[in-house]
Amino acid sequence: MDNRYAIGLDYGTNSVRALIVDVADGREIAAAIWTYAHGHQGVVLGKDPNLARQHPADYLTGAERTMVEALAIAAEAVPGFAASQVIGIGVDTTGSTPMPVDADGVPLALDPKWSENPNALAWLWKDHTGWAEAAEITKLASQMRPQYLAKIGGVYSSEWFYSKILHCLRTAPEVFDAAYSWIELADFVPAALSATLAPGKFVAGICAAGHKAMYNKTWGGYPDKEFLNALDPKLAALRDHLTPRVQDVSSAVGGLSSEWAAKTGLPAGIPIAVGAFDCHLGAIGAGVKPGVLVKIIGTSTCDITVKANSDTLADVPGVCGVVDGSVLPGYFGLEAGQSAVGDIFNWFVEYVKPAGLGHVELTTEADKLKPGESGLMALDWNNGNRTVLVDQRLTGLLLGQTLYTTPAEIYRALVEATAFGALTIINRFEEYGVTIDEVINCGGIAEKNAFIMQLYADVTGRPMKVSRSAQTPALGSAIAASVVAGVYADFAAAQAAMTGLKDRVYQPDGAAHAVYAKLYTIYRTLHDAFGTTTGTTNLATVMKQLIDIREQARG
Amino acid sequence: MDNRYAIGLDYGTNSVRALIVDVADGREIAAAIWTYAHGHQGVVLGKDPNLARQHPADYLTGAERTMVEALAIAAEAVPGFAASQVIGIGVDTTGSTPMPVDADGVPLALDPKWSENPNALAWLWKDHTGWAEAAEITKLASQMRPQYLAKIGGVYSSEWFYSKILHCLRTAPEVFDAAYSWIELADFVPAALSATLAPGKFVAGICAAGHKAMYNKTWGGYPDKEFLNALDPKLAALRDHLTPRVQDVSSAVGGLSSEWAAKTGLPAGIPIAVGAFDCHLGAIGAGVKPGVLVKIIGTSTCDITVKANSDTLADVPGVCGVVDGSVLPGYFGLEAGQSAVGDIFNWFVEYVKPAGLGHVELTTEADKLKPGESGLMALDWNNGNRTVLVDQRLTGLLLGQTLYTTPAEIYRALVEATAFGALTIINRFEEYGVTIDEVINCGGIAEKNAFIMQLYADVTGRPMKVSRSAQTPALGSAIAASVVAGVYADFAAAQAAMTGLKDRVYQPDGAAHAVYAKLYTIYRTLHDAFGTTTGTTNLATVMKQLIDIREQARG
Repeated sequence: MDNRYAIGLDYGTNSVRALIVDVADGREIAAAIWTYAHGHQGVVLGKDPNLARQHPADYLTGAERTMVEALAIAAEAVPGFAASQVIGIGVDTTGSTPMPVDADGVPLALDPKWSENPNALAWLWKDHTGWAEAAEITKLASQMRPQYLAKIGGVYSSEWFYSKILHCLRTAPEVFDAAYSWIELADFVPAALSATLAPGKFVAGICAAGHKAMYNKTWGGYPDKEFLNALDPKLAALRDHLTPRVQDVSSAVGGLSSEWAAKTGLPAGIPIAVGAFDCHLGAIGAGVKPGVLVKIIGTSTCDITVKANSDTLADVPGVCGVVDGSVLPGYFGLEAGQSAVGDIFNWFVEYVKPAGLGHVELTTEADKLKPGESGLMALDWNNGNRTVLVDQRLTGLLLGQTLYTTPAEIYRALVEATAFGALTIINRFEEYGVTIDEVINCGGIAEKNAFIMQLYADVTGRPMKVSRSAQTPALGSAIAASVVAGVYADFAAAQAAMTGLKDRVYQPDGAAHAVYAKLYTIYRTLHDAFGTTTGTTNLATVMKQLIDIREQARG
Repeated sequence: MDNRYAIGLDYGTNSVRALIVDVADGREIAAAIWTYAHGHQGVVLGKDPNLARQHPADYLTGAERTMVEALAIAAEAVPGFAASQVIGIGVDTTGSTPMPVDADGVPLALDPKWSENPNALAWLWKDHTGWAEAAEITKLASQMRPQYLAKIGGVYSSEWFYSKILHCLRTAPEVFDAAYSWIELADFVPAALSATLAPGKFVAGICAAGHKAMYNKTWGGYPDKEFLNALDPKLAALRDHLTPRVQDVSSAVGGLSSEWAAKTGLPAGIPIAVGAFDCHLGAIGAGVKPGVLVKIIGTSTCDITVKANSDTLADVPGVCGVVDGSVLPGYFGLEAGQSAVGDIFNWFVEYVKPAGLGHVELTTEADKLKPGESGLMALDWNNGNRTVLVDQRLTGLLLGQTLYTTPAEIYRALVEATAFGALTIINRFEEYGVTIDEVINCGGIAEKNAFIMQLYADVTGRPMKVSRSAQTPALGSAIAASVVAGVYADFAAAQAAMTGLKDRVYQPDGAAHAVYAKLYTIYRTLHDAFGTTTGTTNLATVMKQLIDIREQARG
């Protein structure tokens, strides 16, 4: 039998990647990356630190450049490889990253008239300008439609679809009025590749619709018009322009268009899988199944697990979403996450620029420190808190500094803060009956940073496993392509063949975990004090406890 | 009449300065500085961040080098100047900086046997290793001798005399046992210059004794033996070796010894004034009088005011000391202070090293920001809190960071934190009936940094004046020398002739003050939450309030 390959297209925060995968065993034979051209490393910023946009032109340019380059690399690296052996394409993206489109489904920003208007660009997942609208939606839903909130952790986030659209409607009505509809990046790319952008053909993925647009079949799809009308009549009118065709990743949106076949040299008509968020397809690429938590650690994290949709499942407060079929068909997908992880380390290195040290040097120095030795404690909230607080109007905190605190100590405290945030998510799942037996990490940090992985093991007291693939979202997209192309009967079979773990497992160190158990109590004290209205009230001992732990650590 | 000059010797944290002053008008004709040779910039550090020591040899070397150099500079700069025109020497130092001495009054550390033992060195003011002993002394005094605490703000500090000595007794008994007594740096230098170190001749200043060693005539001098015995019998025994001769700065300890006359070329026998702390003599050099608060702003601050000792004066909780005659004869000296000010900025520049920026660049950038614009809030506790909490086991805090927070924003937040700390002290004085009509700043930061002085005016809502002299402690020491030499009848006359203000007064900006009034409320919320057991309990809105203020500031 001829070799067959699938392409996974993975749209990250700063760049897009094309990965070519052997569908027989998941072997990754070629990859190409392209950093978006617009803004600062692909992100258009504003004076308001909440603003983060992307230019849709970068998505199309990126698809073409990376697929062409990856195919060329494959042809050079693998004897006998031909583009004709590619049997399908899967797509994963950041999200919720919605963009306004015209009546043909084309992004407004591709029209020169709108190209320079930040509100007509794609509203990147980490854009939090809609924080007030998020609060408004949450408040209204809690009064009118509490069932909507029950599936999204109890709070509608400023990162999500309607918060952004309503904020645009309120603050940039000329953009809102010029738009026929709004679509997610995860749906835009498959539709663009298959020439199905037009409203009559357009298919949305259940992943984005269910997790971000409150789409649920049990209440008839998108939120009802009465509810949307109470937010704004124009939002109710928009509902008629949202596609009724919502499918999971076991379906194709269509075949590769002749235009894109010509651009890339790929066979026209090969199936393009329904798109989904990077973390969801990444979870598939890492081997998610019931009992397995997949942590995709990058600038932020997505923490994904699944539970058979035949099981009873309590609503989990603060967990961003529980959507039937959003990850694997036949399973509830449960999504949690941290609003910033790598972004916090990048902030420290790129904005604070301590002593000109980079991540490598800081990691080396931080790794030499003992748990508790610095006396520092941080909160990982520089970009708000997604799970379990679902509150973007939270900020970072660093506590315990002396006159001798070093950059490496701060760096370690920031890493520890993200580990404490990770533990808070695991605990929340288990408190509500979602057992976590195994943690599989993926993403750049899991792949490259043994210090952080060991620290996560020590903080959580659980072994940290790492996905064999360094590109699980792209691999998951390629797995979806394999399934929609009919190579495998279902995802379980495709995962069994195409995914795996690295040999190295990070085992928790008992002594370190004992110190971290104490530090985590302090983290939770601060977490609850600043993040909840029911938080502990006695902070007078916080600094002293940290000093005690510091002195014990230093011996 | 021939010109007459006085020398002020000023012992700082990192260096010693000799200043030669014309006694007629306070004109400073020559100065020389020498950085102590031992340790890091004159401070011997240890693994424990609480440890900070100095080598007594540096004090003697520094006196000789700086006086010789200053005299040479004066001879070159002023026609007709001769060392024979110097009529006296005054000395100010950091404190409490006690050191163990032998039976001849000579520091143990000058004996090669002890020279390398950090516990035999001088225990620098900012050494906090005795924090547990400080708590013990406070607890015992509150039970046995509450009157002792009433004059020192209610809490005996780890920075002070007995905390350090008791810690040495407990942790380095070989050093304690080898010592005949312990003396303050402020007393050591005048005694060394006048050859009065020997116990029969040795004179202590009321400033150090009253503020740090709980010396008070109303209870018979030093704390009584019953009290000291309850701490440790050896401490009670030490009381017999503390000098009963305790005087204010209007007295001389003796005349310049022939040995020091030979070393320096100064006339033998010229009077050496009783020594006092830098902030106390600095307050004199800045023009302290009732209603005037003098802020000496350096690595830390001393905030000094006086009140006639014929007035009634309530005890002021948290104000470090109220001692009759400790600043000006005939007045209560009231001393408050912040444990770190310049030290916090230095920590950020020298330890964090943000983007390789120095104080000048950070100040320039920070000055461009508007109050509240960064969304940041810091606590100025990297070295604990002296006034009003008197608690060394507190640490720094920075809150409000986003993914875009810059070094200049952090720098400004640190400056603001010290301003909020300064305001807390002013408020405390006034709450207890010590009216502050005028604030005169001095020290390097007041002298050089218009940004910080303007910010202090904006935060406090009060004009910030700056002493004409850039060297008020040394000038104050020279004023004391002038008084003990009989040039002036009293300090008021000497101050009238020899002190003054700079023309530039920093007036508060109303709009900035309004924003800072809001921010100060948040500062106090955090201050009370982390620093007291009675602090406010609702921190859930802290980050959101800062974001609101940030958004208003950014418009």
